[in-house]
Amino acid sequence: MRATDKSRTEALSDGIFAVAITLLVLQITVPQLPAGAANRDLVRSLLDQWPSFVAFLISFTTTFVLWVNHHGLFYLVRGVDRPFLFANGFVVMLVTFVPFPTAVLAHYLEGEAANAAAAFYCGTYVMINAGYNLLWHTAAHRRLVRPDIPQDRVKKIRLAYHAGFFVYLTATVAAWFSAWVGVAICCSLWPVWSLLHYGAAGDGKTQGREPGDRPE
Amino acid sequence: MRATDKSRTEALSDGIFAVAITLLVLQITVPQLPAGAANRDLVRSLLDQWPSFVAFLISFTTTFVLWVNHHGLFYLVRGVDRPFLFANGFVVMLVTFVPFPTAVLAHYLEGEAANAAAAFYCGTYVMINAGYNLLWHTAAHRRLVRPDIPQDRVKKIRLAYHAGFFVYLTATVAAWFSAWVGVAICCSLWPVWSLLHYGAAGDGKTQGREPGDRPE
Amino acid sequence: MRATDKSRTEALSDGIFAVAITLLVLQITVPQLPAGAANRDLVRSLLDQWPSFVAFLISFTTTFVLWVNHHGLFYLVRGVDRPFLFANGFVVMLVTFVPFPTAVLAHYLEGEAANAAAAFYCGTYVMINAGYNLLWHTAAHRRLVRPDIPQDRVKKIRLAYHAGFFVYLTATVAAWFSAWVGVAICCSLWPVWSLLHYGAAGDGKTQGREPGDRPE
Amino acid sequence: MRATDKSRTEALSDGIFAVAITLLVLQITVPQLPAGAANRDLVRSLLDQWPSFVAFLISFTTTFVLWVNHHGLFYLVRGVDRPFLFANGFVVMLVTFVPFPTAVLAHYLEGEAANAAAAFYCGTYVMINAGYNLLWHTAAHRRLVRPDIPQDRVKKIRLAYHAGFFVYLTATVAAWFSAWVGVAICCSLWPVWSLLHYGAAGDGKTQGREPGDRPE
Repeated sequence: MRATDKSRTEALSDGIFAVAITLLVLQITVPQLPAGAANRDLVRSLLDQWPSFVAFLISFTTTFVLWVNHHGLFYLVRGVDRPFLFANGFVVMLVTFVPFPTAVLAHYLEGEAANAAAAFYCGTYVMINAGYNLLWHTAAHRRLVRPDIPQDRVKKIRLAYHAGFFVYLTATVAAWFSAWVGVAICCSLWPVWSLLHYGAAGDGKTQGREPGDRPE
Repeated sequence: MRATDKSRTEALSDGIFAVAITLLVLQITVPQLPAGAANRDLVRSLLDQWPSFVAFLISFTTTFVLWVNHHGLFYLVRGVDRPFLFANGFVVMLVTFVPFPTAVLAHYLEGEAANAAAAFYCGTYVMINAGYNLLWHTAAHRRLVRPDIPQDRVKKIRLAYHAGFFVYLTATVAAWFSAWVGVAICCSLWPVWSLLHYGAAGDGKTQGREPGDRPE
Repeated sequence: MRATDKSRTEALSDGIFAVAITLLVLQITVPQLPAGAANRDLVRSLLDQWPSFVAFLISFTTTFVLWVNHHGLFYLVRGVDRPFLFANGFVVMLVTFVPFPTAVLAHYLEGEAANAAAAFYCGTYVMINAGYNLLWHTAAHRRLVRPDIPQDRVKKIRLAYHAGFFVYLTATVAAWFSAWVGVAICCSLWPVWSLLHYGAAGDGKTQGREPGDRPE
Repeated sequence: MRATDKSRTEALSDGIFAVAITLLVLQITVPQLPAGAANRDLVRSLLDQWPSFVAFLISFTTTFVLWVNHHGLFYLVRGVDRPFLFANGFVVMLVTFVPFPTAVLAHYLEGEAANAAAAFYCGTYVMINAGYNLLWHTAAHRRLVRPDIPQDRVKKIRLAYHAGFFVYLTATVAAWFSAWVGVAICCSLWPVWSLLHYGAAGDGKTQGREPGDRPE
């Protein structure tokens, strides 16, 4: 594997994230009303589509948070080898899959089959989480983690990924009893993944911000 | 947050803009004519699709202008932190959403429900404008604006964004009385966003153009 | 406009070209055969779709050649200003539009309405050619062309673009008499656009190839 | 051709790979059940869609492996000229085509027409392999291969590509007797393409990994 492979793998991954996140909107379909439909009818139809909007919102946010974590993880890695490359391929495959369970969730969230739809949706995140676990395990096992990264950060990230696996599994089971509870448990991890500490010592501070900078 | 995060956030945003702007054409569907349809029928069908073409034209132009402003805004920023990153995520989420109100507008612009369709379309830009306001507010509040940028430019941009919010709100209300007036008010801001001054002292002049350059 | 604007405008344009060229395949739809359909039926259905394959092939090649010329043109330019930026926006808007006339051509190439479909298809290239003319005119008029580019090359490119306009116009008219002749005239310009000379003195030779390099 | 052309050709190719690989999911459609469908019905419908999931999995993996090989091949090349550029255009055209045979395979894998669908799918890879053969032949013939690459590596890659052609041809023929055998033969080359040796002397080792690095 070559030095340029890391940046190219990131570039392909970013392209895939960008396309997958933009395709989410395609599951929201234009309401097909009869020819003489009035304003009131269109408004009601759009409001009736709320499960599509909710599913769009949840999937976009989740995929965006996945991207933030993907970058965090790659920041800690100094290079890629074939096993890491294929583990990353597994992760991005699941990311491109997200529009499908999102569409299923949007279509069935209001009906009798809401539990199955929500469980399928949550189950997808069990798989994605397994992908991130595999990716991080591969990085550690193949000694791809940058040597300046303290061991306890490596362990904390592994712990967070492991814990996430059980939370998503719980969500999938819970979805069989209440679709909304299952989906809510998935979303409850947003703050965790948003604040997970990957960065260098200066993380949390703005890069390039010196004390004494002109306040605004 | 790391030094590379700004360029990566830009790269993901650019990718999302590129995909979203290219998906707009998918709402224009091939006319389905009976088997023996003549040239005349196809021409008439294509002409009857004018609301789709208009909606495509307006949404493409608007999204392109949004991209120009997104770059202008990022030019003034020296780095990103998490709140800015998530404010940007909110903006690009709304950008990926644009194909849906565009399709609704194209489908209903000619019928009885034109007002609701246009109001929904304009309302989307109220949200997008709110996203840009949030992004710029976050940049200023978190001291992410480059120190060499004069304060009055920061204020002028904020003022333009605030004013835009009320114009889009007006458009949304006006659309309930006349769909076309609502949409026209949205488009009336194109010159404003196209000419909004973000750049360095040399803005408006071509970078790298010296006096004495060979005229053509 | 800033020094980075040229590369960013190129990056957005490349992203749009990549998405638009990949969406072309979506107009080829899976044949919907009755449940017990045999191998023979599927083969016949796929063969019956030949207009879709031809349209895909032609549009892909044309868009690819447009991309080659877009890069050639940008290579001759040392920076972008707002008029050039918006002229480029016009060009890429038409590039994103290509999947629609392609789908219309594929759908109607075999039927009675083939002339109208082909004329619409050729007419799209009249517009795209007009966009390239506008872009090159803007570059020359705004003095964005690199000073080391000889004047006669600027003129030759302008001449080729002007000539192209009349060829595409001829194709559009011809399509009304024979759909295939119209489309063939469009394709007849592929060699011209593929060989149009934009590059530096070393163009036509491989960059970095020295005499004395080990033959293979 | 200019020095920047190699990186731009790679960038466009990467963009096309990213979009094409992400569009694969669009062939998996949401099951349309009657209004009162229960959880059980949705689960059964999703399970009944297994050919779509299998086709998604196979096409994603294959396209990902194609991308890995595309990068390997470009790594060995020091520049691009027009014939190479157009040979690469032929390869990426076929890559954008992959979602269509994938959708056909998913739709017909279970029915009577499975053989035709599988043969069409395998036949696509015959074409793609021919594209890679053409690309590598062009690189060697036009002396675009980096001079530091030993001749026997060039020959080994050529041999692997030639052998692949006959394997895919065999798969296409075999698919007429058993759809699954045909598809399985295609997949049997994954390890070959995944392990094909393109890289520099350090290939197989992680770039930047020194002896004495802290084990984890």
